Amino acid sequence: MKPFIVPASAKSWIEVDPESHFPIQNLPFGVAVHKNRGEGMVCAIGDYALDLPVLMEAGMISEEEFPWLDTFLGLDKELLTKLRKRIYELLEESHSELRDNAKIRKKAILNRKDLQLTVPIPPTAFIDFYSGIQHASNVGKMFRPDQPPLLPNYRHLPVGYNGRASSVVASGTKIIRPKGQTKGPNDEMPAYGPTKEMDFELEMGFYISEGQDMGKRITCKSAEDHILGLVIVNDWSARDIQRWEYQPLGPFLSKSFATSVSPWLVTLDALEPFRIDGMEQDPEVLPHLRSQGKQHFDIQLEVLLQTAKMKAPQQIAASNTKHLYWSISQQVAHQTSNGTPIEFGDLYASGTISGPEEGTYGSLLEISWRGQKPVSLETGETRTFLEDGDTLTLTAFAQGDGFKIGFGECAGTIMPAQG
Amino acid sequence: MKPFIVPASAKSWIEVDPESHFPIQNLPFGVAVHKNRGEGMVCAIGDYALDLPVLMEAGMISEEEFPWLDTFLGLDKELLTKLRKRIYELLEESHSELRDNAKIRKKAILNRKDLQLTVPIPPTAFIDFYSGIQHASNVGKMFRPDQPPLLPNYRHLPVGYNGRASSVVASGTKIIRPKGQTKGPNDEMPAYGPTKEMDFELEMGFYISEGQDMGKRITCKSAEDHILGLVIVNDWSARDIQRWEYQPLGPFLSKSFATSVSPWLVTLDALEPFRIDGMEQDPEVLPHLRSQGKQHFDIQLEVLLQTAKMKAPQQIAASNTKHLYWSISQQVAHQTSNGTPIEFGDLYASGTISGPEEGTYGSLLEISWRGQKPVSLETGETRTFLEDGDTLTLTAFAQGDGFKIGFGECAGTIMPAQG
Repeated sequence: MKPFIVPASAKSWIEVDPESHFPIQNLPFGVAVHKNRGEGMVCAIGDYALDLPVLMEAGMISEEEFPWLDTFLGLDKELLTKLRKRIYELLEESHSELRDNAKIRKKAILNRKDLQLTVPIPPTAFIDFYSGIQHASNVGKMFRPDQPPLLPNYRHLPVGYNGRASSVVASGTKIIRPKGQTKGPNDEMPAYGPTKEMDFELEMGFYISEGQDMGKRITCKSAEDHILGLVIVNDWSARDIQRWEYQPLGPFLSKSFATSVSPWLVTLDALEPFRIDGMEQDPEVLPHLRSQGKQHFDIQLEVLLQTAKMKAPQQIAASNTKHLYWSISQQVAHQTSNGTPIEFGDLYASGTISGPEEGTYGSLLEISWRGQKPVSLETGETRTFLEDGDTLTLTAFAQGDGFKIGFGECAGTIMPAQG
Repeated sequence: MKPFIVPASAKSWIEVDPESHFPIQNLPFGVAVHKNRGEGMVCAIGDYALDLPVLMEAGMISEEEFPWLDTFLGLDKELLTKLRKRIYELLEESHSELRDNAKIRKKAILNRKDLQLTVPIPPTAFIDFYSGIQHASNVGKMFRPDQPPLLPNYRHLPVGYNGRASSVVASGTKIIRPKGQTKGPNDEMPAYGPTKEMDFELEMGFYISEGQDMGKRITCKSAEDHILGLVIVNDWSARDIQRWEYQPLGPFLSKSFATSVSPWLVTLDALEPFRIDGMEQDPEVLPHLRSQGKQHFDIQLEVLLQTAKMKAPQQIAASNTKHLYWSISQQVAHQTSNGTPIEFGDLYASGTISGPEEGTYGSLLEISWRGQKPVSLETGETRTFLEDGDTLTLTAFAQGDGFKIGFGECAGTIMPAQG
């Protein structure tokens, strides 16, 4: 499939701030919940969003060519590229069709800040990898100090596990502090109560477009044909629950209470100019996981924390997707290497993306180094883990020449435990 | 909810062999794929099955009271109990409505052996527990010989993990031997190829009927109100892939290639006479996991193997659900104890159900004790793990006074690796 890349010099007749996440080079898609008429797809441009069902009704998007545009359902990757190209045509400064139609413009151009956006696609399945090598190393150093920080399989396959799809929620959804069973090393018995180690995980995720039947596998070369686009993922984690439950079958209730995703699905086409080689894989991986060309992306990531006392969020970490050891193509190739069928709407996340030094860590577990180094905030407050009332926001963008390809925000506020 | 229990003395005007899994006391539901007209619900009786959409069309099942009966969709637990009661009325020997209507009888009574049955409900999610304490002990003895066989958390919470729902298949679906990455302890590098340790896991599963919203939990007392019924589950496992991949996040591709379920959903109402206390839980579990009354079931389990050379299957193990340490109610209470939302169609499985001695183990890993004790078959063949052409069948029933409440079979034949 040939990507549709908007020229860096292109401009829209809608004015867009150079710092905006949503210039005409991006054009990501989301799903808005409208009062009275339910869900409908939208496409972000600057401070605005185009209402796609309205444009279809007005005859500006072909009803024959595209399925209903209430949700992503029925949109494969090729159709999405076509749709994005058509929206580019409607928004580019020299095109008059929408620009000069005041009536449709008024109906189809919505203020982004008024929108209520949902999860782009309610996931059919949620798979979480562990491809941030610095994060995996940090966790190894903390929990197995007398052994090599990475387990022997780490550099040979993208370690991952199945998560819980039913608790994937939209950015902005309040996160109820989970209860669970925990046991300290010196406690005689475990106890059930609200987690005392509420954490976030800075991740990037992607959605599957075209599925694959059982018994077949997808190669690294063709994997991207099955990927609809990227979103930011916060895999909220209760560390004390995780420590007690995870042996021998992996994390379960310490993760399943909530996972937040950002509302805008950013296409691989928009990220095309930001491809990079990724770090060297040593030892060389087995042939079925070998990829050629630039299958990683240079996307900057930021973590912002705002306590109930703070007037504005404060950055507590900055990282980059270049710290991922395994590419999204390798993740798909691995997942299907045993013949597992994959489906439209499967959501895959990267694992926590930490950089190599302090200030670049993608979880409070690492930032506070198991609670030993509390984070000092501008208000004089400190944090080892998240407290009730804290809002944690993840954001991400690729920096172009004079424009940003951004993801917007993935935010959640911690609410007191219930029940 | 009050269960509907068919008296042990009840008889149908359809003759049923005392050894049949499907007397009038059972009346389990399935979904058949009919040539020409797609899927439709069926209810098993002896060697036959009632075609429910046909009975609805004939006015014998109320169209107002029940949703379409093509699939389970829209049937909550209360409606299913009502439906089963109505079917009992139609089949009981003193009732003439269906018995004496030759035209409808001919259309609505199908031969079970001609039916193509699907997975009762394509699962929204698949969660696998580890509640067979003998299995967990055996695995511990094999893999951590110098430590206590059970990990410290085992008796405090039902250990479990999220599996892959997209690869849950109907009994009879051929199982393609998965490929994957493996590494022996003395190999310098891992290799990718067909698994050499293809195994089965003898499990019992249940489906969720009424879901529960995020942030709320379900108590042990009310958990069964959310359970639609039970099925047999075979969680096919590739042991060599599992050993190499599972640290630190648990089993992934070693399980996700296929999971088979039996076609008949057996209601808890039908199993009511077979309730038992279950084994003593020591130490006493925390209050949120404590249950009262008989929340376990006495269900006999058998494992049958037929190689390509054999004329008939040979029993290689027999076990019982009484060997489960945690009840299905405790599993639901645990799963929702952190506020995870659950949904109609979620499938939960028990984990491998092994008994305490040889002959009662629910996996070849245990039966052949890691390949050290090959199983001798009647043909003179031996097996440590499954070979291509082998058919592995699980079956289950509760023994009543003069009748069996059975589950039918959960079978799969191993096919050579592909691709």
